Amino acid sequence: MRVPVELRHALRLINHGPTTIITAAAGARRNVMAVAWVMPLEFDPPRVVAVLSRDTLTRDLVEASGQLVVNLPTVAQLDLAYAVGKQSGHDIDKFTLHDIAVEPASRVAAPLISGCAGWLECRVHTEPDLQTRYDLFVLDVLAAWGDDRLFSGGQWHFPDAQSRTIHHVTAGVFFATGDRREIAR
Amino acid sequence: MRVPVELRHALRLINHGPTTIITAAAGARRNVMAVAWVMPLEFDPPRVVAVLSRDTLTRDLVEASGQLVVNLPTVAQLDLAYAVGKQSGHDIDKFTLHDIAVEPASRVAAPLISGCAGWLECRVHTEPDLQTRYDLFVLDVLAAWGDDRLFSGGQWHFPDAQSRTIHHVTAGVFFATGDRREIAR
Repeated sequence: MRVPVELRHALRLINHGPTTIITAAAGARRNVMAVAWVMPLEFDPPRVVAVLSRDTLTRDLVEASGQLVVNLPTVAQLDLAYAVGKQSGHDIDKFTLHDIAVEPASRVAAPLISGCAGWLECRVHTEPDLQTRYDLFVLDVLAAWGDDRLFSGGQWHFPDAQSRTIHHVTAGVFFATGDRREIAR
Repeated sequence: MRVPVELRHALRLINHGPTTIITAAAGARRNVMAVAWVMPLEFDPPRVVAVLSRDTLTRDLVEASGQLVVNLPTVAQLDLAYAVGKQSGHDIDKFTLHDIAVEPASRVAAPLISGCAGWLECRVHTEPDLQTRYDLFVLDVLAAWGDDRLFSGGQWHFPDAQSRTIHHVTAGVFFATGDRREIAR
């Protein structure tokens, strides 16, 4: 079940470096694309950075709306993560093509992709120079969600192989998130 | 054995979001600290970004020298990664305290930590505004290395559990890099 994640724990959703799928919407248009280069920037207020290529429809929609959602796909969604990273929304409606189920977000117009492990609803902290020179977007996290089977009490606990988050290596190659290792103290 | 990684493959060393240990040196001083927030920024030229907190000795040395090394620790180095993230080099010599073996880098003064899975020798692409406002450093990758048991032909292939890279979640909690999943095409 999708449940809210406290903002002070929101960055733990992406601290281990999983690959993401970003959704964006502006006016009647929406799009979805895979984005591997997302990481935390600041704990308080919770901020992340993401690299959004300039030739993408998602980038256009993010710039038009000032909003996006960072969705965290699981191993079960590997094919989806790969497909939405390969195709351009300029040419096709990826939601229809891949039959992507979505749910409304709470603070932004971009949708949440159903079945993900976690979600960050974000507002662009406008930095025109960074966006232009490096395709780098600074994002304020407005709300966060987790699947409570996988994330609760501020911690991940993956019950099975299919529910693990994924890490992108190169075209078509990923790692699943592996075993938890805790320091003995 | 440590072998060179072609610059066009250098970003694959960190594309899956592993946590890192950063080494820096300036004059007679050197230091080492864990840095989880490192990710690729551009493929060509190969560039990465890293968040370096302003109250750290490593940050001072990076600003003084304009150089650093991104080292990629393995599960076998988990205790080391945790320890050098907890302690400040202002107070102690972490290399001596933890008996950290190092090797000279090829292009920078900062040392390479022996036994890591991969290494990126980097030069700071000076961005004073980003460094001051976000603690964010843009880094040009000058040279890259991999342990050829773990990374060759531009791909990771971890032979055993102890040699996998690690991903930081929160204080003392990590994930090992998990199983490889390849898209069927």
